Amino acid sequence: MEKVRVGIIGAGRIGRVHSKSLTNNVPEAELVAISDKFVESAKKAAEEFGIPNYYEDYHKILEDPTIQAVFVCSPTNTHADIAMEAAKAGKHIFCEKPIDTSVAKILETEKVVKEAGVKMQIGFNRRFDHNFRKIHELAKNGDLGKIQIVKITSRDPEPPSAEYAAASGGMFLDMTIHDFDMACFLTNSDVEEIYVNSAVLVDPAIGEQGDVDTAIITMKMSNGALAVIDNSRRAAYGYDQRAELFGSKGMVATANDTLSTAVIADENGVTGEKPLFFFLERYMESFSEEMRQFVNACENDTEVPVGIHAGMQSVKIGLAAKKSVAEHRPVLLSEI
Amino acid sequence: MEKVRVGIIGAGRIGRVHSKSLTNNVPEAELVAISDKFVESAKKAAEEFGIPNYYEDYHKILEDPTIQAVFVCSPTNTHADIAMEAAKAGKHIFCEKPIDTSVAKILETEKVVKEAGVKMQIGFNRRFDHNFRKIHELAKNGDLGKIQIVKITSRDPEPPSAEYAAASGGMFLDMTIHDFDMACFLTNSDVEEIYVNSAVLVDPAIGEQGDVDTAIITMKMSNGALAVIDNSRRAAYGYDQRAELFGSKGMVATANDTLSTAVIADENGVTGEKPLFFFLERYMESFSEEMRQFVNACENDTEVPVGIHAGMQSVKIGLAAKKSVAEHRPVLLSEI
Amino acid sequence: MEKVRVGIIGAGRIGRVHSKSLTNNVPEAELVAISDKFVESAKKAAEEFGIPNYYEDYHKILEDPTIQAVFVCSPTNTHADIAMEAAKAGKHIFCEKPIDTSVAKILETEKVVKEAGVKMQIGFNRRFDHNFRKIHELAKNGDLGKIQIVKITSRDPEPPSAEYAAASGGMFLDMTIHDFDMACFLTNSDVEEIYVNSAVLVDPAIGEQGDVDTAIITMKMSNGALAVIDNSRRAAYGYDQRAELFGSKGMVATANDTLSTAVIADENGVTGEKPLFFFLERYMESFSEEMRQFVNACENDTEVPVGIHAGMQSVKIGLAAKKSVAEHRPVLLSEI
Amino acid sequence: MEKVRVGIIGAGRIGRVHSKSLTNNVPEAELVAISDKFVESAKKAAEEFGIPNYYEDYHKILEDPTIQAVFVCSPTNTHADIAMEAAKAGKHIFCEKPIDTSVAKILETEKVVKEAGVKMQIGFNRRFDHNFRKIHELAKNGDLGKIQIVKITSRDPEPPSAEYAAASGGMFLDMTIHDFDMACFLTNSDVEEIYVNSAVLVDPAIGEQGDVDTAIITMKMSNGALAVIDNSRRAAYGYDQRAELFGSKGMVATANDTLSTAVIADENGVTGEKPLFFFLERYMESFSEEMRQFVNACENDTEVPVGIHAGMQSVKIGLAAKKSVAEHRPVLLSEI
Repeated sequence: MEKVRVGIIGAGRIGRVHSKSLTNNVPEAELVAISDKFVESAKKAAEEFGIPNYYEDYHKILEDPTIQAVFVCSPTNTHADIAMEAAKAGKHIFCEKPIDTSVAKILETEKVVKEAGVKMQIGFNRRFDHNFRKIHELAKNGDLGKIQIVKITSRDPEPPSAEYAAASGGMFLDMTIHDFDMACFLTNSDVEEIYVNSAVLVDPAIGEQGDVDTAIITMKMSNGALAVIDNSRRAAYGYDQRAELFGSKGMVATANDTLSTAVIADENGVTGEKPLFFFLERYMESFSEEMRQFVNACENDTEVPVGIHAGMQSVKIGLAAKKSVAEHRPVLLSEI
Repeated sequence: MEKVRVGIIGAGRIGRVHSKSLTNNVPEAELVAISDKFVESAKKAAEEFGIPNYYEDYHKILEDPTIQAVFVCSPTNTHADIAMEAAKAGKHIFCEKPIDTSVAKILETEKVVKEAGVKMQIGFNRRFDHNFRKIHELAKNGDLGKIQIVKITSRDPEPPSAEYAAASGGMFLDMTIHDFDMACFLTNSDVEEIYVNSAVLVDPAIGEQGDVDTAIITMKMSNGALAVIDNSRRAAYGYDQRAELFGSKGMVATANDTLSTAVIADENGVTGEKPLFFFLERYMESFSEEMRQFVNACENDTEVPVGIHAGMQSVKIGLAAKKSVAEHRPVLLSEI
Repeated sequence: MEKVRVGIIGAGRIGRVHSKSLTNNVPEAELVAISDKFVESAKKAAEEFGIPNYYEDYHKILEDPTIQAVFVCSPTNTHADIAMEAAKAGKHIFCEKPIDTSVAKILETEKVVKEAGVKMQIGFNRRFDHNFRKIHELAKNGDLGKIQIVKITSRDPEPPSAEYAAASGGMFLDMTIHDFDMACFLTNSDVEEIYVNSAVLVDPAIGEQGDVDTAIITMKMSNGALAVIDNSRRAAYGYDQRAELFGSKGMVATANDTLSTAVIADENGVTGEKPLFFFLERYMESFSEEMRQFVNACENDTEVPVGIHAGMQSVKIGLAAKKSVAEHRPVLLSEI
Repeated sequence: MEKVRVGIIGAGRIGRVHSKSLTNNVPEAELVAISDKFVESAKKAAEEFGIPNYYEDYHKILEDPTIQAVFVCSPTNTHADIAMEAAKAGKHIFCEKPIDTSVAKILETEKVVKEAGVKMQIGFNRRFDHNFRKIHELAKNGDLGKIQIVKITSRDPEPPSAEYAAASGGMFLDMTIHDFDMACFLTNSDVEEIYVNSAVLVDPAIGEQGDVDTAIITMKMSNGALAVIDNSRRAAYGYDQRAELFGSKGMVATANDTLSTAVIADENGVTGEKPLFFFLERYMESFSEEMRQFVNACENDTEVPVGIHAGMQSVKIGLAAKKSVAEHRPVLLSEI
C-alpha cells in the first residue's frame, strides 16, 4: 500500500511531537517536509527526524503536488487561515486546537473545507488516551446505563507565565478547552448551559491579566446529564488528569498514570508514584494514535474521528465560560 | 466518676441508634429513660437496650430532675420546640439535624439555649467519621497549605419515596445538608455563595413533588476556596461517600469503606467489595463518637464539638440552594 | 434469655482484652469473676470493667456453681492443667493458644475434655477477622475453584525481647502458630509436610537464644495445595497481615487495614496510611467475634467454631517447623 | 553517528519481536539481515519490517563483514553453538535465554566469547521492565535498608502443551528461569541454596512428561536474604507478574500492569482490569529497552547490562531446582 505523504507546518513543540510520532509510530505515513518561519527550527527538526525537505515558507508545502495531507502546528491565530489555504490547495488537514477563537472564523473555515472536499481533523489528542477511551466505550456500549453525571479533574503541574496565559485567550480557551471536549466525548453529547465558579488562588499576576487560575465549572449536557470540571493551574503533586462517569447502572473512574506500579511501605506510610509529569509524558501514546487514525482516514477515505463540529463546540463552550465569569450567571451555549 | 444521666426523646430509627451507642460504647453515660408518642416503640427500645424507664410523653423526661441531658430524636418539625423546652428545664441538648427549616426559629432556639446556659450539640455525625476527621486534621495542621478546592461526592444507594422526599423539605435540607456541613468542616470556613445545577434523573415522581434527585452544587467559601458537591439519590453500587481537599501543598482524598479488603481476580477482572450499604453501616462508629464527645462536654463543662452555628449554617445553605434552583442564578448566603 | 455466666482466669493483657469484649460487645454473656495470682491485677480489671468478683486463686472461679464457662488466659505452661481442672468442674472452656507445647499433654487435655462433655474453644481469633473470613468463605463456596496455592504474609512491627522469644517456645510456636492455623483455615485442610528457610536478620540476640526472626516456610496441605508463609519479627512500616488464596478459577487477596482511607498526594508521592499498629488494634473486632461465637455455642449447645483439633494441628506444625530447621530438611507432620 | 549494523538469526516469535523493536524503537541500530532455516519465515519478516536481506543459512549473516552484532533467536539447543561461531566471526552477540542447559557448554561459550573479545548479552528482558527496574534501584540506593526477603509471583495465563513443556527442559528452565534471574537482580546477589515444593495441579499431561506446573521455591541468597518464588502455569485472571522486596527500612511491592486505570463500580462490586494478557503485551517495552542498551554497549564499547554470569547463574539455579524436586531436599548451588 502506498504511504500517505505528509508535511508539517510549524516546528515548535507540538510540531516536533508530531514529527516524532509520524516517523516512529505511523508506518502508513511518510513525512516529507516541515516548515517554520524560524527556518533554523525546521532545519533542526528535519535533521533529527530524517525529514527530506525543510522550508521557511509553508506555501512550499502547499505547492508540493505529491503531499496529500498537512499538519497545522503554527501559532493559534494562524490556524484558520492556513487551514483554508491548505483546503484550497486540496490537502487534507490535521489542525491543532483551537481552530480559532472567533466563531465566525471557524464557520468560514468549515465552509471552505467542505467546498474543497478535504478532511479536517482537530487535535483533541486526549480522545485517543487509553483511559478516557475506555470510559467512552463503556458509556457507548450502555454498560453504565443512562449517563447522569460526568466529572473531570484537570490540574496542571505548574502555571504558565501570566503573559502566556493572557495571550492564549485565557485558561478556558487554552487549558479547559481539552476538558470541554472531554465532557462532550465521554457523554457523547453537546453542552447546553454553563456556569463558572472561579478564582485566582495560584498566581496574582494571572489575575492582573484578567484571567483566572482555579475553577469549578458546571454544565448541563444536551442529553440531560450534569457535568463538572475542576481546574487548577498548579497541583503540588503534578499533572492530575482524572475522569468519572456515573450512570443509572454504575460508575467508571480513571486514575492517573504513573511511571511504575511500585509502592513503598516504610515508617512514613505507603507511598506510590506521583502522576506522570505533564502532557508530553502523560499523553505521548495518544499523539501517535490520533496521527494513525488521521492517516488511516486519509488513506481509506473514511470520516476523521474528531471533526470541525468538536472544534467549534469546544471554542463556543470556552467563550460561554468567559461570559459566565464576566456576567456572574449561567450562560446558554445558544447565546454564543 | 459519676455517669451523666441521659434520656432519649423519640424511639424511631435514629433514637434506637443512639440508644445502642450509649448503652454499649459510652461508659460515661447512663441511659435512664426513653419516650415516644407511639409508646410501644419506647417500650420495645427499653427492653432491647435495658433502659429502666419509658414514656409516651417526653415531658416525663424533662421533669426528671436526675436527668442531665436529652437527645432530641423526634420528627424534624418538633426539634426546635422540644429543644427550647429542654433548655428551659435545664437539660443539655443533643439535637438531630436540622434544628428547624426556618431561620427565625433557629435564632429563637439559639437565644433560649443561651439564656438557659445549657449545651446544645447538633447531630452532624459525619464530622466524627475516621476518614473525614483525617482530612479535617490535615487541613487544620496546614499540611495541605492554603485550601483551594474541596470536592464532596455523596450518593445514596436508593431514593426515598417521593412523599418522604417532599415532606423532608427536599433533597437539599434532607440529604445534602450533611454535605453542606462537611464542606464547612473540611475547609474550616462558611459558605458565601452557592449555585445549583440540578435535575430529576432518578425518579420522575420526585420531580412531580417539586424536588430534584441529582445535583452538582458549587460554592464559594468565605476563606476563598471553591467547593463542589455532587449528589444522586441512587447509585447502583451503593452508598458513595468520598471527599477530596486540594491545597497549595497537596491534596488528600478518601475512598469508601468496605466490609473487607478482599480483592478477587478472575476472568471478569479484579474486583473489590462495594461500599458499605448505607449510613447505618457506614457511619455507626461516628454515631458512638459524637455521643461520647457530647457526654464528655456535659461532664467536663467544655464546649460541644458541633454547636448551633453549624446547625444554622447548614440550613441557610440548604435554603440558598433551593432559591438558586428556583431563580436559576447564584445566590449569596447573605440573601437568606 | 438467660445470660451465660463466665469467669476469666488471668488478668494480663489478653485477659483484659477479653474482659472488655465480653462487657461491651457480648450482651449474651455476663462476666461475673476474674482471677490472677497477682491479685492486684484482678482487682484493677474488676474495677475497670465492673466485674463483681475478683480472686487470687482461680479455683474460686471453678468452684462457683453459677459460672458456666471460663476463659483460660493464664501463662502458656498452665493452659492445659487449668483447662483439665475446669473440664472436671464441668465448665465450658475458652483457652488461649497454644494449649501446650507438648503433643502428649494436648492429647491428655482432649481426653479429659471429651469425658467431661464440656466445650473447648481455642483462641485463634484471626479466624474471626473480616478479611480472612471473606477469603475462607469464597474458598468454601467454591468461587475460587480447586485451591492450589495459599500465601500468608505475617510480620510484626517490633521484635519481642530475646528472653521472651526464647521462653515463648520460639517464633514458630509463639508467632507463626497463628499463620499455621490460618493456612489450615483458608484451605480447609491440614498440613502434611513442612520445610523452613529461616535466618536471624533482625536481632542477633534472638539468634543467641537459639531462635530465628525471619523465615519463609513452605508446606504441602493434605488437599494437595501448596502453602507459603513469610515471617519477620520487624517490619519498618508496622504490622503486616496479608493473605492470598489462588485456585483454578481465580485468586483472592486481602490488604492491611488502616485507620482511614485517606491518601495524600504531594511532592513526595501519593501516600496512604500505614497498617494498624499491632494485634490489639488490628484484631480487636475479631476478639469480640470469637467471644460471641463461643458464648453462643455454650448457650445453644452447638459446636464451637475452633476446636481442639485446630489447637493440636498448629502445635504439631510448629514442632515440625523447629525440626525442619534443626535437621535442615522437609519434615512430615506424621513424624511429630 | 554511524548506526550499528545488526542481523537476526531466527525469525520465530522472539526474532520477530526483536525485528520490530530494532526497526521502530532503536534508531541507533540498522537491521540489515534476518535468517531462518524455514526461509519463508525470514522472507516474511524481511518484508514486514523492511529488512534488506534474508537468508536460509545464518552463516550468510556471520560472513557479512559489515554486520557488527547478531541476535541469536534460534531454538534453545543451538544457542551456544551459534554464539560461539558468531564470536569467532568477531560479532557482538545478543543471545536469548537460556544459553544452554549444560553448565559445561555455557563455560565453553564463555571462554570462546572472552577470547574473541566480543560482547555477549543474555535476553533477560524483565530486568528492563519499568516496575522491576524501580525495585532494583530502590534496593541499590539503600532506600530499603538491608534486604531480608524477596518475593516473586510469576504465573502464566495458560500452560504450554505437555510436549513443549518437556522439550523446553521443564518449567524451571523454561519459565522460572526468568524469576531466578529476577531474584538475583532485585537482591543484587547470587543464590546459595534452593528448596522446591512443587506439584501437578493444572494439567496431568504435564506430570506424565515428568514435569510440574505449580511450585513454591525458597532460596537463600548469598547476601543472607531469603527468597521465595511462586509459580503456576495457569492463572484464570491472566499473566501475574509481581514482586516484593522487604528490607530493614521498608518494603516495595509492584502490581500488575493493565490496559487502563479504569475501575467500574456497579452492583457486582468495584472492578478494575485484568493484567495485560501475556509476555508480549506485558513486556514489549522492556524488549525495546534491552535492545537499546545492548546496541549502546556495542557502539560505545561499554559493558553489557546482562552478561554471561547471569546466564550461567539462572541455569545453575534451574538445575538445582530440578535436583531438589528429584531428591526431595534442599540443594546447594555449589553441588551443580
